[in-house]
Amino acid sequence: MNIITISREFGSGGRELGKRLADLLGYDYYDREILSAIAKAKGMDEEYVEKAMENGFWRSVPLSFRHSFAGPAMLATPQVELLLEEKRVLEQIAAKGRDFVIVGRNADVYLGEYSPFQLFVCAPEEAKLSRCRERAPEGEKLSDKELLQNVRRIDKNRARTREIITGSKWGDRANYHAIINTGDWCIKELVPSVAEMAKAFFGRSK
Amino acid sequence: MNIITISREFGSGGRELGKRLADLLGYDYYDREILSAIAKAKGMDEEYVEKAMENGFWRSVPLSFRHSFAGPAMLATPQVELLLEEKRVLEQIAAKGRDFVIVGRNADVYLGEYSPFQLFVCAPEEAKLSRCRERAPEGEKLSDKELLQNVRRIDKNRARTREIITGSKWGDRANYHAIINTGDWCIKELVPSVAEMAKAFFGRSK
Repeated sequence: MNIITISREFGSGGRELGKRLADLLGYDYYDREILSAIAKAKGMDEEYVEKAMENGFWRSVPLSFRHSFAGPAMLATPQVELLLEEKRVLEQIAAKGRDFVIVGRNADVYLGEYSPFQLFVCAPEEAKLSRCRERAPEGEKLSDKELLQNVRRIDKNRARTREIITGSKWGDRANYHAIINTGDWCIKELVPSVAEMAKAFFGRSK
Repeated sequence: MNIITISREFGSGGRELGKRLADLLGYDYYDREILSAIAKAKGMDEEYVEKAMENGFWRSVPLSFRHSFAGPAMLATPQVELLLEEKRVLEQIAAKGRDFVIVGRNADVYLGEYSPFQLFVCAPEEAKLSRCRERAPEGEKLSDKELLQNVRRIDKNRARTREIITGSKWGDRANYHAIINTGDWCIKELVPSVAEMAKAFFGRSK
């Protein structure tokens, strides 16, 4: 089973890259489905779960979280429950034994034992703002400054959550097989070579 | 003209990747030739130039260096002279108009106006140590600790020199089109997909 995990800066096009990669390779694709599954398992609203796992989420996760997968010694806060459910959902997907691409959800960490191809996708802030503008819900009227604050806040949240779960740094080149900066090219044109790279990784002799 | 610049952590295999990439694409390849050309132009010994540009080199480059390409206002220290010669040599190579791969020598910065495909290559410290061991001159007897100190010292020098020249961070994902971590696979198996990525970059419509 081949797994590609995509971590990404908000607005960098990581989701588009992941979707196109899955289509090209004929892999399953997971993204928001994970949130739905967590919400369903917990009997919560999907949007509530999404909000709960953003914006300062990490502040309520005890620092002991990453040492506690093995034992019951961890404080069972609602935030910890959500992270554990996230892990369970990811493991259920892996248990299917089918190749897949997954975007976000700390999958590179939770699924580490399956030796996934770990990608990180980034872009310059200008490119991220313009992507966010293109994809904003109709009627959303944020100034550039507000939008930029949003982008930075979401990335900060992702970074802190990852650090608490793993103790290692989000977006650090040491933690991924490849980092792709989408700023200077079209994702559509870039994807075939990323697919080749993933195939080389899964077929590696080392 | 297509230019691929490869910046790399010491021992990460960036040079091997660059050489194989050039062979596969049929591009010219530059690496130590730059040092020889600088040495020749300055009437210095190549080994002397190499040593002079390593190890604490950046300490003697004035912080004003990156603002001073345009004017004569810069202090002409021997170190500045070497950097300017480096820039001249790179421009002479680019003036040939032939596609090429170049490893190191701040080429991503100096040749920025040619829109090169900018790669950064890294690896875990363990992999770098083992690569250094394999390639050490016969009779070199460094302990793991000494070797690790060497690796870190050289990378620190590269990082500081780049920061002084450009004001931007060495190895930071914002400054490259792609970062490849060679730790988990063979460079030989990885290279064809990197070549595909470079081709996608040079053929991009954006």
